[in-house]
Amino acid sequence: MKTDDFRSLIEAELIAFDQALNNKRPLNLYTPIKYTLELGGKRFRPMLTLMGCLLFNGKPEEAIKAAIGIELFHNFTLVHDDIMDKAPLRRNKPTVQKQWNQDIAILSGDALFVQSVQYIMQSPSDKLKEVLEIFTQTALEVCEGQQLDMDFEKQYNVTIPQYIKMIGLKTSVLLAGSLKIGAVIGGAGNNDAHHLYEFGKNLGIAFQLHDDILDVFGASDKVGKQKGGDIVSNKKTYLFLKAIEVADRYSKEKLQMWMQAGEENAAEKVESVKTIYEFLNVKVIAEAEMRKYFEKALEHLNSIEHCNNEVKVQIREFAENLMQRES
Amino acid sequence: MKTDDFRSLIEAELIAFDQALNNKRPLNLYTPIKYTLELGGKRFRPMLTLMGCLLFNGKPEEAIKAAIGIELFHNFTLVHDDIMDKAPLRRNKPTVQKQWNQDIAILSGDALFVQSVQYIMQSPSDKLKEVLEIFTQTALEVCEGQQLDMDFEKQYNVTIPQYIKMIGLKTSVLLAGSLKIGAVIGGAGNNDAHHLYEFGKNLGIAFQLHDDILDVFGASDKVGKQKGGDIVSNKKTYLFLKAIEVADRYSKEKLQMWMQAGEENAAEKVESVKTIYEFLNVKVIAEAEMRKYFEKALEHLNSIEHCNNEVKVQIREFAENLMQRES
Repeated sequence: MKTDDFRSLIEAELIAFDQALNNKRPLNLYTPIKYTLELGGKRFRPMLTLMGCLLFNGKPEEAIKAAIGIELFHNFTLVHDDIMDKAPLRRNKPTVQKQWNQDIAILSGDALFVQSVQYIMQSPSDKLKEVLEIFTQTALEVCEGQQLDMDFEKQYNVTIPQYIKMIGLKTSVLLAGSLKIGAVIGGAGNNDAHHLYEFGKNLGIAFQLHDDILDVFGASDKVGKQKGGDIVSNKKTYLFLKAIEVADRYSKEKLQMWMQAGEENAAEKVESVKTIYEFLNVKVIAEAEMRKYFEKALEHLNSIEHCNNEVKVQIREFAENLMQRES
Repeated sequence: MKTDDFRSLIEAELIAFDQALNNKRPLNLYTPIKYTLELGGKRFRPMLTLMGCLLFNGKPEEAIKAAIGIELFHNFTLVHDDIMDKAPLRRNKPTVQKQWNQDIAILSGDALFVQSVQYIMQSPSDKLKEVLEIFTQTALEVCEGQQLDMDFEKQYNVTIPQYIKMIGLKTSVLLAGSLKIGAVIGGAGNNDAHHLYEFGKNLGIAFQLHDDILDVFGASDKVGKQKGGDIVSNKKTYLFLKAIEVADRYSKEKLQMWMQAGEENAAEKVESVKTIYEFLNVKVIAEAEMRKYFEKALEHLNSIEHCNNEVKVQIREFAENLMQRES
């Protein structure tokens, strides 16, 4: 199976789910779910589940329901995160709480979460308990990561290791869990499943560092969300934390001044902070850190022993593409 | 096993869960969960699961994890409902969004939901799929009921059948599902499990009508939440809908006038609307309706064939106590 075949399989399942929602009521609960799914997305996580399954010569049709469950769970987290982040846009469209209201975003998110469990539980019955264990453990860690992220907004001193731990929970464990669920369904041994998980974990950290960089330095029309949103909302990203660490006194004062600024000067704030980041060379430092995690990920991938080597190459290429995306 | 034994078993499990939370971080995610559980509650739903299991001579230790999962799920819905209802109090204490903030209430609710699944999935493996099907179907219906409840707040014409449908989803299906999950784990036949579900469904409607009555006419210190909260927030309860239906022109105008009133005159509003309800005799009408559903519930309970009759009597007594509570 090629990457495009995975994508087609996933889209076909998502379309079937979307169609089935047409008959469900009340509309204020299910239309926001349709809207969220129809915003699209790159479907990285379900692709990882399918590839994780094939890596151990499992059948993709045994992993597809779990893969969709993970994609639905991911979309649920986006809906709730957008409330907490007060995000106006998601993929160039109004977020659910902007398009409807916040209560509807809370509740339709909850319903989407329930539906993610309804897909996960269609995993092969002899693997169901283990799949549920990985899924719920991962889901809980994603909540922990989101809480740490919110805590950090109000915390004066955040260290880079704390930040890496936070993005590990908020972003990486879901990529790692997606792969491991596929591996378990595919029949992987414990050691190999562990290495695939660690591959995903490190890839996820590299992926998030890339995201941090794109938020500031990506092309606005490609990012599909508010440009420099992390700067506007004073997110303590890797770029920010590194900037504070390496800054001369004058740059540090300027950064701290912009941290106090209200949101009415958002565009000016983004441009000014970006200029400071460029002056301090933190983009280059962040890219080096990103590559470090990426290399570590590949080491774990290489350590997997009993597997289909063609699929291993495919996963490696997938990871490389992930790190080269511009949005 | 007596009712008190069920209660002890449930409390012991909840204490173990609560204790385990002490070691979990971040605190802003897990302390609100501890707080919510420590508010207490009558644990009706897990008791129904245990009794449903014993009714078919199942072992309570096989149903206890699912029972706790349902209680955690119920508590999750309370945390999120309190955000949507802007409720300041729950069991005489500040709600999570008042004690912390709204974002924390959203996210700790999400985490509690994940943990509810972690308990549900500890059901006996040969029953796991069926238990998950009932649980997720019920959870989705609870979301539908909550959405209808919110829709009705903004809808001019709500009929009594629509209202009964809404409370059926929002409240009754969880009581019905709690019983049916117990029945499935206990090894009930399909027909008997169906009757037990319908018993719970009708009991739940009677229970909610009772709740509507208590919100207005209950003793304030016993209700443990804002007195007359349904009136303040213009909830279209059975009492309100019946009042509009039977009201003379003058009473109807007064009711509609109070519907427009802001929340600054909350106490006066509650007293005035209560006086209109008393004048129109809607408390008596609501009590008759409540009894109708209660009788229907008992008919379904009586229709269960292959079961332990001692437990059937116990369930009947439990239901009778439920309808006699004053808070």
